[in-house]
Amino acid sequence: MGLNFPIKKKPQEKRINKANLGMDLETMINESNEWYLVNDKAVIHKKPTPVQIVKVDYPMRSKAVITEAYYKTPSTTDYNGIYKGRYIDFEAKENHNKTAFPLKNIHPHQITHLENIIKHGGIGFLIVSWNLYNEYYLLPFDVCKEYWDNSYKDGRQSIPYEAFKKRAYLIKEGFIPRLKYLDVVDELYFK
Amino acid sequence: MGLNFPIKKKPQEKRINKANLGMDLETMINESNEWYLVNDKAVIHKKPTPVQIVKVDYPMRSKAVITEAYYKTPSTTDYNGIYKGRYIDFEAKENHNKTAFPLKNIHPHQITHLENIIKHGGIGFLIVSWNLYNEYYLLPFDVCKEYWDNSYKDGRQSIPYEAFKKRAYLIKEGFIPRLKYLDVVDELYFK
Repeated sequence: MGLNFPIKKKPQEKRINKANLGMDLETMINESNEWYLVNDKAVIHKKPTPVQIVKVDYPMRSKAVITEAYYKTPSTTDYNGIYKGRYIDFEAKENHNKTAFPLKNIHPHQITHLENIIKHGGIGFLIVSWNLYNEYYLLPFDVCKEYWDNSYKDGRQSIPYEAFKKRAYLIKEGFIPRLKYLDVVDELYFK
Repeated sequence: MGLNFPIKKKPQEKRINKANLGMDLETMINESNEWYLVNDKAVIHKKPTPVQIVKVDYPMRSKAVITEAYYKTPSTTDYNGIYKGRYIDFEAKENHNKTAFPLKNIHPHQITHLENIIKHGGIGFLIVSWNLYNEYYLLPFDVCKEYWDNSYKDGRQSIPYEAFKKRAYLIKEGFIPRLKYLDVVDELYFK
């Protein structure tokens, strides 16, 4: 019988040797942001999931337990922060479809929010994954808005893959950062 | 027996005719931000409370219920957004003490976060309420940081009221916006 050390696995160990295949968009962006932060490139964080807390228990000698809560519709986007002195704000969406990205993935108040951000001088966009193709695009807000507005006229409720090919920007992947989306931001907003 | 309508009170109705006395700092800031947003002055939102969701039930024909969750330590501040094209970030704290504001109200990673924000060109500060005096101060981050750093040397774990009087900025109150904190921001960061 040898020594039995309790070996604690860090949660990220499982992921490190995996390809991006199977890693969800949120994790990829969070890891990229962590790298950008540690390397002093940008301070960008994911906002916590909005939850309406209804009931909280306080068991003796242990911490508070939330025993009833509900998911709330987010009023803003998932990510914001600062990059090269500018306010940056975006929403990240996974897309499992083959030919188009359905607009119903986006909440109307997220459109309003991004509009406000741009009006006030910030940088706003979406990051959309095309999971079937293993591709990640930065979709400038104005392109998204054009399809959003047109959907009320022509009834088309999605953005075709072709439009991503032509008017969105493929994000390069790497080991670290996973998604080099700030390279695209550099090209689009700082040149 | 008359008609018994189930009268639903909106949560804010209770507040509207009340003086600020008793209105908590978070509500006052949220209402101010709402006014700033609607009047196109700034886009500043409170981040949702970070919660670790452990168990979710999906009862038939009704929405998902979170039945086990825990409060998480926030890794950033409560509020951020954009004002006059600049990234703005702050933490809000209530203080019930008479002579000093205890530094233990602030998490170490919130200090780190605000330091990062300022390094990247953003505006960072704290809003501290002195509930006994019904006073609200904007405390510039550098003043807070000075007391934070000194606490490791001189052991003083709080910022005295006198320091607020001398080095923080009293925020004017009004009907709308409740807390005119962007007036102080104008004075401090845009002049």
